Amino acid sequence: MSFRARHLLGIEHLAPDEIVTLLDLADTYATDTRAGRTHRDVLADMTQINMFFENSTRTQASFELAGKKLGADVMNMGMQSSSVKKGETLIDTALTLNAMHPDLLVVRHPSSGAVDLLSQKVNCAVLNAGDGRHEHPTQALLDALTIRRAKGRLHRLSVAICGDIAHSRVARSNIMLLGKMENRIRLIGPPTLMPAGISDFGVEVFDDMEEGLADVDVVMMLRLQKERMDGGFIPSEREYFHRYGLDATKLACAKPDAIVMHPGPMNRGVEIDGTIADDINRSVIQTQVEMGVAVRMAAMDLLARNLRADRASAVA
Amino acid sequence: MSFRARHLLGIEHLAPDEIVTLLDLADTYATDTRAGRTHRDVLADMTQINMFFENSTRTQASFELAGKKLGADVMNMGMQSSSVKKGETLIDTALTLNAMHPDLLVVRHPSSGAVDLLSQKVNCAVLNAGDGRHEHPTQALLDALTIRRAKGRLHRLSVAICGDIAHSRVARSNIMLLGKMENRIRLIGPPTLMPAGISDFGVEVFDDMEEGLADVDVVMMLRLQKERMDGGFIPSEREYFHRYGLDATKLACAKPDAIVMHPGPMNRGVEIDGTIADDINRSVIQTQVEMGVAVRMAAMDLLARNLRADRASAVA
Amino acid sequence: MSFRARHLLGIEHLAPDEIVTLLDLADTYATDTRAGRTHRDVLADMTQINMFFENSTRTQASFELAGKKLGADVMNMGMQSSSVKKGETLIDTALTLNAMHPDLLVVRHPSSGAVDLLSQKVNCAVLNAGDGRHEHPTQALLDALTIRRAKGRLHRLSVAICGDIAHSRVARSNIMLLGKMENRIRLIGPPTLMPAGISDFGVEVFDDMEEGLADVDVVMMLRLQKERMDGGFIPSEREYFHRYGLDATKLACAKPDAIVMHPGPMNRGVEIDGTIADDINRSVIQTQVEMGVAVRMAAMDLLARNLRADRASAVA
Repeated sequence: MSFRARHLLGIEHLAPDEIVTLLDLADTYATDTRAGRTHRDVLADMTQINMFFENSTRTQASFELAGKKLGADVMNMGMQSSSVKKGETLIDTALTLNAMHPDLLVVRHPSSGAVDLLSQKVNCAVLNAGDGRHEHPTQALLDALTIRRAKGRLHRLSVAICGDIAHSRVARSNIMLLGKMENRIRLIGPPTLMPAGISDFGVEVFDDMEEGLADVDVVMMLRLQKERMDGGFIPSEREYFHRYGLDATKLACAKPDAIVMHPGPMNRGVEIDGTIADDINRSVIQTQVEMGVAVRMAAMDLLARNLRADRASAVA
Repeated sequence: MSFRARHLLGIEHLAPDEIVTLLDLADTYATDTRAGRTHRDVLADMTQINMFFENSTRTQASFELAGKKLGADVMNMGMQSSSVKKGETLIDTALTLNAMHPDLLVVRHPSSGAVDLLSQKVNCAVLNAGDGRHEHPTQALLDALTIRRAKGRLHRLSVAICGDIAHSRVARSNIMLLGKMENRIRLIGPPTLMPAGISDFGVEVFDDMEEGLADVDVVMMLRLQKERMDGGFIPSEREYFHRYGLDATKLACAKPDAIVMHPGPMNRGVEIDGTIADDINRSVIQTQVEMGVAVRMAAMDLLARNLRADRASAVA
Repeated sequence: MSFRARHLLGIEHLAPDEIVTLLDLADTYATDTRAGRTHRDVLADMTQINMFFENSTRTQASFELAGKKLGADVMNMGMQSSSVKKGETLIDTALTLNAMHPDLLVVRHPSSGAVDLLSQKVNCAVLNAGDGRHEHPTQALLDALTIRRAKGRLHRLSVAICGDIAHSRVARSNIMLLGKMENRIRLIGPPTLMPAGISDFGVEVFDDMEEGLADVDVVMMLRLQKERMDGGFIPSEREYFHRYGLDATKLACAKPDAIVMHPGPMNRGVEIDGTIADDINRSVIQTQVEMGVAVRMAAMDLLARNLRADRASAVA
């Protein structure tokens, strides 16, 4: 088995063969879940703690379900109402949790790098469920599995990522993953929502949707994250939809069999036309959610195997 | 077995034999729970998601306990702090959850009909835990089981439902269930809290408690739901208790062995005198809570059986 | 076995042999947890409900983890958003929960005596997770186990409890436990944060840290609980740290092998210098958290045994 990581902190540190190993296992879990086959023994006797310093019903539910499907004890800690408010530092919170001997720690935090820092202080496997504008690795992995299932491969594809790139850890993780797997990446969005120096990453940058979408295989829309825009340019929703929202006219520029993706939750009529989101011949948005559970099952399974091996060798 | 429903959306669509089937099974679960007998295999490998768009510690706890007692994985989603706030539609939320392959979805929602709508979009069994002023079927079923246990039968009884009928989905579901089982129903309350045209439902309507309670077998008090009264007549608590609160004098008009019920949480001294609520010879309020868990176990068990049968025939 | 209690409401009612029985069992659980040995059968088929009327992520997580490690079904009820807000009394809430047949009820409440009162109304075992300024027995027990592991014994030690004694149920429970086990107790803090008449409890009281810490074996710091100080003297943090915060100079007055404890969450730079908190040769703060899970496992195990015996004799 070629998955060597002790934590899943980002796509940045994963090698292509590790990504393939994870996606292969996730693919099996997805097939088994559809068929009603269960795997309650994989994480039996393991404790998973979900620490969400930012709310995310959807991602937390996906991790919780993944853990329970593998038989783990899952504990959700609402960190908004926690000791953090009583003046405790992030490190003290981490050390406290660590002393309770969890095995898997799933962390979402508003600061880039916080999950990385936390992973250095604990004895368990840490999964990044999104940190600031940095990374959201399980989202990129579930997007990759969705693409691979729809297109039959995950290389030499032309993928357009559209919208608010600057504020998006989803975009950042996807750019790294798709790049490692040798795909052509196009970023489309208003220049004000494009990070400085992004063209150094081997991507093509477009300001015009029709131009950028020309002949792509995959159209990946992003959520307009108004809550992350502090002081900068905020477009009106109507204007944004007119220029950057995905509608039938713009989508017609992509390949005839191009798939449409969105990480959710969607703002219908802002980033994407509702009719396209619901078109089962083009949209794979529900498949993304489904693959999300499978990818998280695979990630926790692989990390748990490495954790068990580490512990066994520590004893020996 | 004569329980054919795929969802439990309301009493309206249940036939009398389905109600009896469900109550019989719930009765067994109630007896077994008291005796410490467990049934962790019934929903083993099933995933139950509780989606409460309105807070209800008591009902949510009852469903959670029922699921866990049958061995299900139970996941609570706090929908107040969820994607809904980020602009996602109810249908998108439903489709997202559906893509995670749950088996049982328990939903409470402030809008009448929302649970029904949601059930049409998903592949799992949906249980209505209360929708707007529409229905609250498990409450009516637990009330029915409580009456049947106390009175030895569930037909040809005279039942008074008292108080804020207009705002009460509990009253609505109870009127339908008790009517289907051929009981005499009396509604007692101020005309301003009585829904228009209610007498067409084959019920008798009273404005005076002593008159309405004359010779009834069952006195069912309702909670005064101030939070649902928008702009209409709001009586003072003292005045309300004087005219419509259940006290010893008014209760003396009912049959000597009449039982007293309340769905909780109680406003002591508003709808009901505390002494009567605590009188173990008359009050079955604690039994209602106990039967609540049993009825929810039975409902989920029966729906799960139908779900398994549907899935098996889909494969064959 | 010499643990006779039906509830764990406080240290006050425990005999020394009961304390030793509980600590011995907790010690085994702590060792087993470190070694990865599990005990999912101990509370299998038992239902544990956590009712926290005051937020405490840390204590609630510890109880939840303890229950899950022993195989219990654990249900968290967020009592801040519950029926209590709809006007329900504490007793009605307790009776409602009791009707759902839980086995173990873990309760934290802002009023002294509330947990005691509640325990008289229910048929299950009740554990006090902190009530007002009254008691916090599992905290005292985990502190005791931490001391016993570090010092090899739990008697004839000189223990200093430092800081805000007046507002601290942790201090109160610790004073009782350490007294029962025949240790010398010193209380150090500003006279305004010292409860009236405390010297009657067989403790020595000091206003000066260096004087009070002279030759002690254990230095137990308390959290400065600003949220509990209503109207009284509130020292500035800088002034407080200068006079009562634990730093290297003050700690030098204690025995060279004295251990440093804190119940958490810590205010670094207020009650305690960060360097001392992190000094693995002196600080046992992480061990306290670890022993917390073990002590709660032991307490629930012992109470469950007594509950089963009670129920069996009730049937016979």
